[in-house]
Amino acid sequence: MTQALLTDKYELTMVAAALGDGTAHRRTTFEVFARRLPDGRRYGVVAGTGRFLEALTDFVFDESALASLAGFLDAATLDYLRDFRFRGDVDGYAEGELYFPGSPVLSVTGTFAECVVLETLALSILNHDCAVASAAARMVSVADDRPLIEMGSRRTHEQAAVAAARAAYVAGFAATSNLAAAQRYDLPALGTSAHAFTMVHTTTSGGTDDWEQAAFRAQVAALGVTTTLLVDTYDVHRGVANAIAAAGTGLGAVRIDSGDLGVLARQVRRQLDELGATGTKIVVSGDLDEYSIASLRADPVDSFGVGTSVVTGSGAPTAGMVYKLVEVDGLPVEKRSSHKASRGGRKAATRLSRPSGTVTEEVVHPIGVSPDGAPSRLLTAPLVRSGEVVARADLNDARDLAARGLRSLPWEGLALSRGDPAIPTRQAVAR
Amino acid sequence: MTQALLTDKYELTMVAAALGDGTAHRRTTFEVFARRLPDGRRYGVVAGTGRFLEALTDFVFDESALASLAGFLDAATLDYLRDFRFRGDVDGYAEGELYFPGSPVLSVTGTFAECVVLETLALSILNHDCAVASAAARMVSVADDRPLIEMGSRRTHEQAAVAAARAAYVAGFAATSNLAAAQRYDLPALGTSAHAFTMVHTTTSGGTDDWEQAAFRAQVAALGVTTTLLVDTYDVHRGVANAIAAAGTGLGAVRIDSGDLGVLARQVRRQLDELGATGTKIVVSGDLDEYSIASLRADPVDSFGVGTSVVTGSGAPTAGMVYKLVEVDGLPVEKRSSHKASRGGRKAATRLSRPSGTVTEEVVHPIGVSPDGAPSRLLTAPLVRSGEVVARADLNDARDLAARGLRSLPWEGLALSRGDPAIPTRQAVAR
Repeated sequence: MTQALLTDKYELTMVAAALGDGTAHRRTTFEVFARRLPDGRRYGVVAGTGRFLEALTDFVFDESALASLAGFLDAATLDYLRDFRFRGDVDGYAEGELYFPGSPVLSVTGTFAECVVLETLALSILNHDCAVASAAARMVSVADDRPLIEMGSRRTHEQAAVAAARAAYVAGFAATSNLAAAQRYDLPALGTSAHAFTMVHTTTSGGTDDWEQAAFRAQVAALGVTTTLLVDTYDVHRGVANAIAAAGTGLGAVRIDSGDLGVLARQVRRQLDELGATGTKIVVSGDLDEYSIASLRADPVDSFGVGTSVVTGSGAPTAGMVYKLVEVDGLPVEKRSSHKASRGGRKAATRLSRPSGTVTEEVVHPIGVSPDGAPSRLLTAPLVRSGEVVARADLNDARDLAARGLRSLPWEGLALSRGDPAIPTRQAVAR
Repeated sequence: MTQALLTDKYELTMVAAALGDGTAHRRTTFEVFARRLPDGRRYGVVAGTGRFLEALTDFVFDESALASLAGFLDAATLDYLRDFRFRGDVDGYAEGELYFPGSPVLSVTGTFAECVVLETLALSILNHDCAVASAAARMVSVADDRPLIEMGSRRTHEQAAVAAARAAYVAGFAATSNLAAAQRYDLPALGTSAHAFTMVHTTTSGGTDDWEQAAFRAQVAALGVTTTLLVDTYDVHRGVANAIAAAGTGLGAVRIDSGDLGVLARQVRRQLDELGATGTKIVVSGDLDEYSIASLRADPVDSFGVGTSVVTGSGAPTAGMVYKLVEVDGLPVEKRSSHKASRGGRKAATRLSRPSGTVTEEVVHPIGVSPDGAPSRLLTAPLVRSGEVVARADLNDARDLAARGLRSLPWEGLALSRGDPAIPTRQAVAR
């Protein structure tokens, strides 16, 4: 299936109407931005730009796609789409960059027809990936350098899961459980085992200790002693004893997936130390989000497995980005519908900071007119020129950029509580 | 990319360990169910079963997939996966069926190895599609037979969007904006136009009325007078006047996408009627959810365009379903972790009702032991036998089943407010 049908019908009927009266060929700029951050959040993290640039290359209408459109599009429009290839320019924030309300995260310039057909695909990718990365970054920032493992594939659409693993990695997660993401994006993959694996060792003889030890022995035999054993199928403390009995004190880690994780982590740490397994680590999982991770900061947890909350954006499953026409043949344009005013004109953005590196303000300004004053960094970079991708960021670069972005925030910008954006966004648009 | 890597790493390492000690070949049943409904909801709607059965057929490990696994799996496990094809049985609720806490929505029986590898894929599909269908059904039930159009593609992952359109249709939505979903699942596609289309008609001469009329004339010329014109780019009432001026009183519909939709719908209805456009319909959109749809029941709205809320499950983006081992070689098994107890044994379910058809209770029972008493319907049906799909439901059948399900609920079961599940689920498990 071609990427080009991942599109709303109205985009193609607009192309048909615009080809009819010639406006299809006007030179336009569309801008992607979020009017606000969800839910009192203080920053967002850009993710998905790389996926969008990949999809752009595949955005062509094959004969099967055209056949499915022939019922409602005229021959001239079908001819236009048959030859379609985006030949315009794209500018935007690098993947991993922080963003704030009004940040022009992506800007698409070309003819009206070639820009308008990209609306749904650009927004789908950025709204999903930014939602995941923005939630993930909050978890990373409270985890105090302890690794986070993304294991939420089962809680989201099967292909969204692959993109979610990628976005969480950009935001600083250490690894994913998702094998397709590991293969496609070369991410570290991790895994432990499920309760089912312990329970499949149930027999008519013996008891839970026997079954659990049999399961643990099988896992150690297959995966080595550095594996992580899941200890809460029957009873956590019996599970820990069975784990060390089966694996010895060189066991890599135990995972606790239920109960009061803080209390259990402290008890299990003590138990492991008493058993001599002082190097055995503790992994916790089970409906963790940024708040529960924060509440475990004082506890002897070595890493966190995070599922539902990260892949669903922890309460904000979509980033609320919009794709708005801001310029037509050099004229800035604005819609005047109530509560949805946008600022016209093609724009770039510059982030200002103190000499210490702490950021103070984001200025959105006409392209080429960067603000004066204090240390600043232009955020807008060329991504596509005349249809050719000119910047394809590396995922590890994106991850470094996200980490630097978090370090650059004023301290209140990292707070989990609801509040204003970490820095103000100033619109310095020449009118 | 093969479907088989849409899987968590631990599933394959469990297979490796289970092949090592022979438990891989034990006969098992895994069950998919939700422990609770999200957020005080009163029912859920099953969706995704058809997609899961399709994916099951494609669940094979090709050489590229195997190559990516060779770094952490032994040769015996790779050989097992190379030949892998699910040869077990699947039973479950038909797509479109209602479900409640503990309903055994899907049950997978086969060897441990062949069942355990399906966990992530089964849950990803069902958790996503059920979340969307369950939210969508609440919107359908308050819309009073007025059509709902799913137009949320841009607010969710680009492939999740296709599945969301399908799930919303199962729940009773009339159409989607998504062209890939329309093509793939033969769904009705609808669309209007964007503010950008009006704004691309901006020129240095004239004013907003001229630009808007030019846009409307172009749209009517291309799409005919039965099209829907978007009237809120500059001013709704000027927009309505311009729409009728451009299209005449035979115009199909106007769309209002901002402002107080109830107030505007009443004013626009009056204005259209005064202009003689008594047959012109009113479509509203703009951050609608089940609550705002309900609040518009008394207003002259002819159809609703719904985006974010339906594709993100209206506050519950995942259905919370789990995949649990319930039986091993005929032995019922249960995990004992705190707060996560499950009921062992392979099960089916029957829904009881009054002679009027109103449902009263769902009974989960051992297979083949349906409860006595009042009118009842067995909910569990064979879906796969020895690896072959034996039931492939039609989407329109699923949609009819969902509609019948909603009609069968006691009146309080349709309330939007938070409450208990519409009917209790009774576990009648032989122990």
